[in-house]
Amino acid sequence: MKALVLEEKDKLALREIDLPQQLGPKDVRIKVHTVGICGSDVHYYTHGKIGHFVVNEPMVLGHEASGTVIECGAEVTGLAPGDRVCMEPGIPDPTSRASKLGIYNVDPSVRFWATPPIHGCLTPEVIHPAAFVYKLPESVSFAEGAMVEPFAIGMQAALRARIQPGDTAVVTGAGPIGMMVALAALAGGCARVIVADLAQPKLDIIGAYDGIETVNIRETSLPDAVAAATDGWGADIVFECSGAAPAILNMANLARPGGAIVLVGMPVDPVPVDIVGLQARELRVETVFRYANVYDRAIALMASGKVDLKPLITASLPFDDSIAAFDRAVEARETDVKLQIVMPD
Amino acid sequence: MKALVLEEKDKLALREIDLPQQLGPKDVRIKVHTVGICGSDVHYYTHGKIGHFVVNEPMVLGHEASGTVIECGAEVTGLAPGDRVCMEPGIPDPTSRASKLGIYNVDPSVRFWATPPIHGCLTPEVIHPAAFVYKLPESVSFAEGAMVEPFAIGMQAALRARIQPGDTAVVTGAGPIGMMVALAALAGGCARVIVADLAQPKLDIIGAYDGIETVNIRETSLPDAVAAATDGWGADIVFECSGAAPAILNMANLARPGGAIVLVGMPVDPVPVDIVGLQARELRVETVFRYANVYDRAIALMASGKVDLKPLITASLPFDDSIAAFDRAVEARETDVKLQIVMPD
Amino acid sequence: MKALVLEEKDKLALREIDLPQQLGPKDVRIKVHTVGICGSDVHYYTHGKIGHFVVNEPMVLGHEASGTVIECGAEVTGLAPGDRVCMEPGIPDPTSRASKLGIYNVDPSVRFWATPPIHGCLTPEVIHPAAFVYKLPESVSFAEGAMVEPFAIGMQAALRARIQPGDTAVVTGAGPIGMMVALAALAGGCARVIVADLAQPKLDIIGAYDGIETVNIRETSLPDAVAAATDGWGADIVFECSGAAPAILNMANLARPGGAIVLVGMPVDPVPVDIVGLQARELRVETVFRYANVYDRAIALMASGKVDLKPLITASLPFDDSIAAFDRAVEARETDVKLQIVMPD
Amino acid sequence: MKALVLEEKDKLALREIDLPQQLGPKDVRIKVHTVGICGSDVHYYTHGKIGHFVVNEPMVLGHEASGTVIECGAEVTGLAPGDRVCMEPGIPDPTSRASKLGIYNVDPSVRFWATPPIHGCLTPEVIHPAAFVYKLPESVSFAEGAMVEPFAIGMQAALRARIQPGDTAVVTGAGPIGMMVALAALAGGCARVIVADLAQPKLDIIGAYDGIETVNIRETSLPDAVAAATDGWGADIVFECSGAAPAILNMANLARPGGAIVLVGMPVDPVPVDIVGLQARELRVETVFRYANVYDRAIALMASGKVDLKPLITASLPFDDSIAAFDRAVEARETDVKLQIVMPD
Repeated sequence: MKALVLEEKDKLALREIDLPQQLGPKDVRIKVHTVGICGSDVHYYTHGKIGHFVVNEPMVLGHEASGTVIECGAEVTGLAPGDRVCMEPGIPDPTSRASKLGIYNVDPSVRFWATPPIHGCLTPEVIHPAAFVYKLPESVSFAEGAMVEPFAIGMQAALRARIQPGDTAVVTGAGPIGMMVALAALAGGCARVIVADLAQPKLDIIGAYDGIETVNIRETSLPDAVAAATDGWGADIVFECSGAAPAILNMANLARPGGAIVLVGMPVDPVPVDIVGLQARELRVETVFRYANVYDRAIALMASGKVDLKPLITASLPFDDSIAAFDRAVEARETDVKLQIVMPD
Repeated sequence: MKALVLEEKDKLALREIDLPQQLGPKDVRIKVHTVGICGSDVHYYTHGKIGHFVVNEPMVLGHEASGTVIECGAEVTGLAPGDRVCMEPGIPDPTSRASKLGIYNVDPSVRFWATPPIHGCLTPEVIHPAAFVYKLPESVSFAEGAMVEPFAIGMQAALRARIQPGDTAVVTGAGPIGMMVALAALAGGCARVIVADLAQPKLDIIGAYDGIETVNIRETSLPDAVAAATDGWGADIVFECSGAAPAILNMANLARPGGAIVLVGMPVDPVPVDIVGLQARELRVETVFRYANVYDRAIALMASGKVDLKPLITASLPFDDSIAAFDRAVEARETDVKLQIVMPD
Repeated sequence: MKALVLEEKDKLALREIDLPQQLGPKDVRIKVHTVGICGSDVHYYTHGKIGHFVVNEPMVLGHEASGTVIECGAEVTGLAPGDRVCMEPGIPDPTSRASKLGIYNVDPSVRFWATPPIHGCLTPEVIHPAAFVYKLPESVSFAEGAMVEPFAIGMQAALRARIQPGDTAVVTGAGPIGMMVALAALAGGCARVIVADLAQPKLDIIGAYDGIETVNIRETSLPDAVAAATDGWGADIVFECSGAAPAILNMANLARPGGAIVLVGMPVDPVPVDIVGLQARELRVETVFRYANVYDRAIALMASGKVDLKPLITASLPFDDSIAAFDRAVEARETDVKLQIVMPD
Repeated sequence: MKALVLEEKDKLALREIDLPQQLGPKDVRIKVHTVGICGSDVHYYTHGKIGHFVVNEPMVLGHEASGTVIECGAEVTGLAPGDRVCMEPGIPDPTSRASKLGIYNVDPSVRFWATPPIHGCLTPEVIHPAAFVYKLPESVSFAEGAMVEPFAIGMQAALRARIQPGDTAVVTGAGPIGMMVALAALAGGCARVIVADLAQPKLDIIGAYDGIETVNIRETSLPDAVAAATDGWGADIVFECSGAAPAILNMANLARPGGAIVLVGMPVDPVPVDIVGLQARELRVETVFRYANVYDRAIALMASGKVDLKPLITASLPFDDSIAAFDRAVEARETDVKLQIVMPD
């Protein structure tokens, strides 16, 4: 099977590679249609590792995928060849202690596409457990289907926040994940979402959505802006999506008494936190690790028109140009949100 | 002060009546602008009582109000003459056990406008504690301001439901409160809301909103419709807004395993409930009594454009025609959702 | 394999029967030590069915069991031959929608011991998935290990209640399950638990525990007793464990404003509920269906000495006297709480 | 009125001082019986300030108090002269936004005893709002009544943790507050509580309680001890009560996937937090600021015998020896947990 293979740090190849072909009784075989490029794919390409996950063997990249079912295992129900689908890339041990609790995302034995040593899905065909394959409604395109994975992180953040209808939220950091979080929070019940960043092009993209306000923190004090927007009370929820130390140090000042902070951004090393500041308002702090049980919710919001991710798809490139697509992603132009790779028919 | 006075069952008068004029240090004086007519106002008119609340003395009607602050008590902060506002009609003892817990709506000592023996607000001027007076943003009209009160019940139902982003909800009963609940649930994070009723004109009104689907249960089995809409899984949340015994008996069948039911409709007498049916899916059942801490959230959703209540205001009538307005409300035309009374300048 | 077989309604046999012998890679083989007799076992014996579960074929009874691991499948970790264990009797499809959410108890495909057509465990050896087998600490005997199953229902009720430390709870109904609920609520954070019943012998058994108060409702008004115990405020939580219509009709009167009711008792048919009474205090109503994710918690409370179930084990009888044991259970003496059957060495 | 007055840093006087004598209609006058010495009292004595709270004027110390009602304001209900009581020392504005939400502890306008510029209660008589005065049952002594305040912090931590029955908790730091948290957690539903500290004398005191295990981190690795106690899974809840940077940096390693951390200890400055470590297990982090709505719960647990704070009262000294008592408290002997001052009859 041809695939986009990360041979080692800085070295990609579009080449044949041996991948599992055996369809288990609860698996489906899927013809891949679209695969989005994630920051983590790019990071493996440029650094050869993320934390303690190290690329020691050639590994197929890609984990944001949609496609069409072409074969079903003997025990599969609810899916049939021809179904348009997207795939949840992390497969837990379904009988682990974490999985039994419904938090399969924190099962230590999860096998996640394009996380060493597990191969990803930038290849024309994949096999996947049916329990982690979700049908796409007519109104959701393959391109949008491949956006469900990054949007799922926004959904997980919105769920962990326990949004109450009419909340005001602040999102610090307008990268792709910050944008996903802002849209999930808005669709998920917030009345207003204020997105803050240093980069105006990113703010322009997310600020084009109804209900999203933006603050360029090069020009405006974010605490002042939040105080002004909330009569001095503070935001109900702060989604920290930058991973930047100054944002983390000051996040308590943005929240109302009794509010919540959701830590989405991932600073590599420990960073200073103003614990007394958190305590003074008795804030709740939630953290996010990937997602669990959100794919169906994400798809429902996209199908109903409450969330439109199409404006965040910057460009689609053919599979044969995958290496060029990754090189463009490495450049990280400020107006690029999501690049996608489309497989040949 | 002139006011719309319910003298006794079936007898309204627009006449002078003695009302408190003393402004306390934490009170504001408000020039009333718009007052909506609620089903409870009408019920007192036609029945002279609701449950154990009996009209034994002449009582001013009305509790859904907006207006303009014209005077502030000495200790009032955050409000000033000229502020456009709406008023929360129930005033608790702020140091009661329930109030200290934040659930002041269930404080037994609440004094609620137009609930005997407390006078309502269908009069040109009222005095109200500043803590229960809320500023209206520019974008929210007086007419919409007077809709905050009925919408607050929808908000309370949405809060008690603990909606998770992307939930599917069913609303049984498309009366004014059912409509408010449907809109609050949709703005509050649901991906889809299915509203069921027997009366097609009501369904047509609420079905005109994006994201609301309707089921006429004269024509279609609601359990079948819900099963079809949810792949046989059931709705995440069922808002029971009809108060009708058959709807209550069958509500468990509409919910998914582990889902929730919110009881908003108020059947006068005990009604049969299928407890084993609730248990078989381990459903959570929430109940709603008025509202607490939702006015600011309701206003925020209206200000941000996520909730538009203007289509539900059927007609506005001048204060001098109040009795005629009530008589129209008694008729309860199927296409009337909300009638409002506007005070003279 | 010899087993206690319910041939049909009213007819038990202790005889050889073909049972599965195949050990899967994730299964363990267990030498059964003790099996408690549950009301449901007795009901199948005397009625041949429970609801739509009908005994159409001979079925082995028993689902409250402890024993010793004697063989482990190839992929089993965390268990070894010689481990003393107890077994969770309901096995879900681990990849079902409900299981993925962590609520595997409401997975419609659960296979539950001694629920037609699934055989139970009143037989010397059983095969069970390792994920539903739990090690017993030294301090927990086999007899107590076989009590984990009925206690798990109490734990599920305590979890669903969301007890806050220092809560006051009322338990209506002092049958075996009411007793389990009372002990779980007390260990689970309640300051006081008031148990109400008509039968003084049962009240005497549960009232012997520190922290449990009893009310004999033949002699004392329960609402009055609760009001007296709570300064007129009401109980934080009411566990309805009787399934009796009068208790259900009046349960709202026992709860404080904003309190909770947990429906544990199972009335066969729909019963009248005072919905306006529930709403007037804005109560939350939770329901319980078996249990999920509570075995480890139940064992921890027993091991730490916070819960002592030994006083509830009325008698232990040898396997060879199983039919006599069931006949004694049918009598349902008021001082019998739990009868257990002990397998031969 | 004679009182223990902190004149300035390092200077205490037992002298006459003018204190408010006016009894409002919702106030009670209380003859003080016992007042505990809190670490914050001592800190004002030795440092003249805590954070931005600075002692600029002479201030009466003390905020942990019990006593007897001697006079009631005209509108007071539920209390009468002769009632034995304890007093919640923080008085919020009951109509503030935070108070309306039930989180009056984070109302910025709270007036808290012995927090500059508000006088404390180390004086024979105090006036206090009846809403923050709680009756002591017969079984709770004045000495225990004066322990309700520090125990309330433990209760707040236990409430914020949302303990589930049977949880395993770890408490880092065995100071007086750590001890209170451990006891509240145990009574509040935990099966086991593991308390860790460097100081063996403190561990010996708290370890004498049934259900509390101790780890001296000079001798034993706490992560190893927790892993051993939980089969490698981790604690359900970690209560961080030391405020020490190393404990905070490593706290994520003690918690199970999906567990919770409650930040009780207050490090003066920002400290490094391993955010990725928190995210990898998707932990929830709660913070604690004083307490709200816990006094009645605390008293209920003490009255029922589930919590016995008497062993933590190290010594009682007469009011006339107050200064000596504070000097002993400054010494902070490792075996002193709580010193109390008793007023003359």
